[in-house]
Order: sequence, then C-alpha cells, then structure tokens
Amino acid sequence: MKLQLALDHFNIQEATNLLKEVADVIDIVEVGTPFIIKEGLKAVEEIKTGFPHLEVLADLKIMDAGMYEASMAYEAGADIVTVLGVSDDETIKGVVAAASKYNRLVMADMICVKNLAQRAAEVENTGVDYVCVHTASDLHAKGKNPLKDLRKIKSSLKKVGIAVAGGINKAMLESILQENPEIIIVGTGITGQKDRRETALAMKKMINEYRRS
Amino acid sequence: MKLQLALDHFNIQEATNLLKEVADVIDIVEVGTPFIIKEGLKAVEEIKTGFPHLEVLADLKIMDAGMYEASMAYEAGADIVTVLGVSDDETIKGVVAAASKYNRLVMADMICVKNLAQRAAEVENTGVDYVCVHTASDLHAKGKNPLKDLRKIKSSLKKVGIAVAGGINKAMLESILQENPEIIIVGTGITGQKDRRETALAMKKMINEYRRS
Repeated sequence: MKLQLALDHFNIQEATNLLKEVADVIDIVEVGTPFIIKEGLKAVEEIKTGFPHLEVLADLKIMDAGMYEASMAYEAGADIVTVLGVSDDETIKGVVAAASKYNRLVMADMICVKNLAQRAAEVENTGVDYVCVHTASDLHAKGKNPLKDLRKIKSSLKKVGIAVAGGINKAMLESILQENPEIIIVGTGITGQKDRRETALAMKKMINEYRRS
Repeated sequence: MKLQLALDHFNIQEATNLLKEVADVIDIVEVGTPFIIKEGLKAVEEIKTGFPHLEVLADLKIMDAGMYEASMAYEAGADIVTVLGVSDDETIKGVVAAASKYNRLVMADMICVKNLAQRAAEVENTGVDYVCVHTASDLHAKGKNPLKDLRKIKSSLKKVGIAVAGGINKAMLESILQENPEIIIVGTGITGQKDRRETALAMKKMINEYRRS
C-alpha cells in the first residue's frame, strides 16, 4: 500500500519546498492537473530530477491523443500517467502502448464514470496498471467521498491495482484502509494542514500499522 | 461563423511562426491540450500578448476544479476556456462562474459524451456559451467524423453557439457549412498542409461565401 501526495495548487518552487519536508514519508508524488496547466511538463521534469527516488505521477487526465500526450509525460520523467475512464478505449489503449514503450505505468481515473463497476472491468481489460476511484473536488462541498465507490468497484476488478482519491484526510483514513487499496491519494488532507510533515507521518504510520495487522 | 485554428503539436516558437502566417485569416487561435501540457499557461499568455486581436481559446478540457482551473487560464489571457461535457454539472458551473467573473466565455467539449442530445441540453442549461461536437483524434483512423453528431445535436439546443471539431479539412468543409455551426475548428487540416496560409485562406473564403449565400 502506497501513499501518494497530490500537489494541485502549487508552482515548482512551492512543490520543491514541500517535498524537502516530506519526500522520505511519501511513495508517489503527483504533479496535479492545475500544477501541470500552470507550469507545463517542466514541473514533472524538475521534480523527478530533484527527487529521483520518488515515483512521479503526471495527472494529465488524458481524454484524447493517448499515445502522444502520454509519451510527452514519460519523456519528461513521469513514472505514472493518468487517463480518464470516460475516454474512448482507443485513447486508453494509446496510453497503455506508450507506457509499454517507455516501461512505465498507467492509471485510469474513474472520475464522473457512470456504471462504475461495468466500466472499471472494461478499463481493466485495456491493460492499465491502476484504476482510481475518484470523487471530484467540486463535489466535496456536497459531502461526497470515494468510500462507497471504492467498495462498489472492488468486486468487479480481478488483477489491476486500485487507487482512491477525493478529499481523503486523516479522519477518513481508517475506513479507507479497511478496503485495502493499493494507492491512497491525499492532497489538501496533507498540503492544507498546519504541520504537513507531522500529518504525512501520522498517515503513513496508520498505513504501515494496517499493513502489519 | 468563425474559423478556429487548433495548435496541438506545437511549442511557443513554432506557434508564433505559424500565427505570423495566418493571424489575419483566422478568428480564434486554440492553444491545444498537448501544447498546454508541454508549455503551461505561458503559451496562452505569450500568444495573447503577441496576437491581441485574436481570440485565444485555452483547451484545458476541464474535468474537475472548474472555478480554479478556468480562473488560471482567464488570468493568463484566455478569452475562451473548454470544460468537458462528461464532467459533473458542478464543475461546468464553476467554469461558467469564473467566466462571468472575468467577462470571458466557456465552451463545453462533448467528446465521448453518451446520449449526446440529452446531455447537450443539460449542458446548455448550465450557462455555457458554446457546445462543441468533437470526434476524438484517436477515432479519426477509424473513419469517424463529427458531421453525424453535429446534425444530431442541433435540434436539442436552443440558444447556445455550436462549435465543431475533429479531423475537419478542406474536403469536408462544404458538408460542415451546410449545418451552419458558429465555430469551425481546424487543426491538421491546416497545420499539416504544405501551404498553410493558402489552405487557411481557401477555407476562410468558403466560409465567407457560405455566409453571403
């Protein structure tokens, strides 16, 4: 089970400063969608160069031109690239082909997918490495969280790793752990806290304790 | 009826060179998704600064954090920002709220939307300015084009402008014109041609002749 830190409202300098605090605690650093929009793939390149021991996920949320866009991100140093579950299978297969060429990984983000269980099974068949259950941040204010979707998706997937994202914080972590996902993605649950390193350490400790139990 | 030139496989220098050739022919320049991924919003900023008379569309294909991501693009100088039709209504409404704050425009991209007619009507109700019928580039090889979807969507929309994208070239333009969309989006149909200015001029001439007829 891995802890992925999502950096959304960041520029490269701010991200580097935070990673100096927490790079020994997390497993994967996510260069979030708005971070990439702001800085371009230079953000992925500089973070991978500065923190080579971390896996870097480029949250491109690819919707089209799968092979082309994913290749750009792998060239920049991304270990994992995201593609949208709502995109066409041809697009997902393009990302999978790029990952295969660069020997990297693909995560399908199931945000806004209808018929979640059925689509997850289809997406698994395209050859992605991870399927991510994800509640849109625009829905957090309405009290939605990804736990119900996580439970729903589990039975329809056979071998792919499951990731979970969407407003996860320390208070929610215990119930997420019960579902045993492969990757737990935390953004403002760490980045928005007063003591970010302490929070990351506390969450990592809960994950490690769960794994040992 | 406007001609929008989509710049996808470009960096800022290449885009500037092309725009020097065609800036007097086109109405809207699209900073395409892979272009933004590569360069970040600096691409939007530099193109708007260099060609202030052109409308600049930032093809963010927003899927979440509508208000936040759209605001970033409007701050950088974008006149139009895209949001995905497959995203949640809350996300689209966030983009519309940002557009209203900055007095700019929103285009909803209907790529990969199921139940196109029904969803287009819902999306129109969120207050977007344009609804874009869009065949994914990953499907062009399979011979798909947006004409059928354009015909399908027209009757379900009341007041919103209709845009059309997806492999449009000079040969297809006549049949697209018959449907009288507000914006015609052309990428490699111009950028991939030997004489890009001549092609753009020829397409613009067809549009103007259709408008006069």
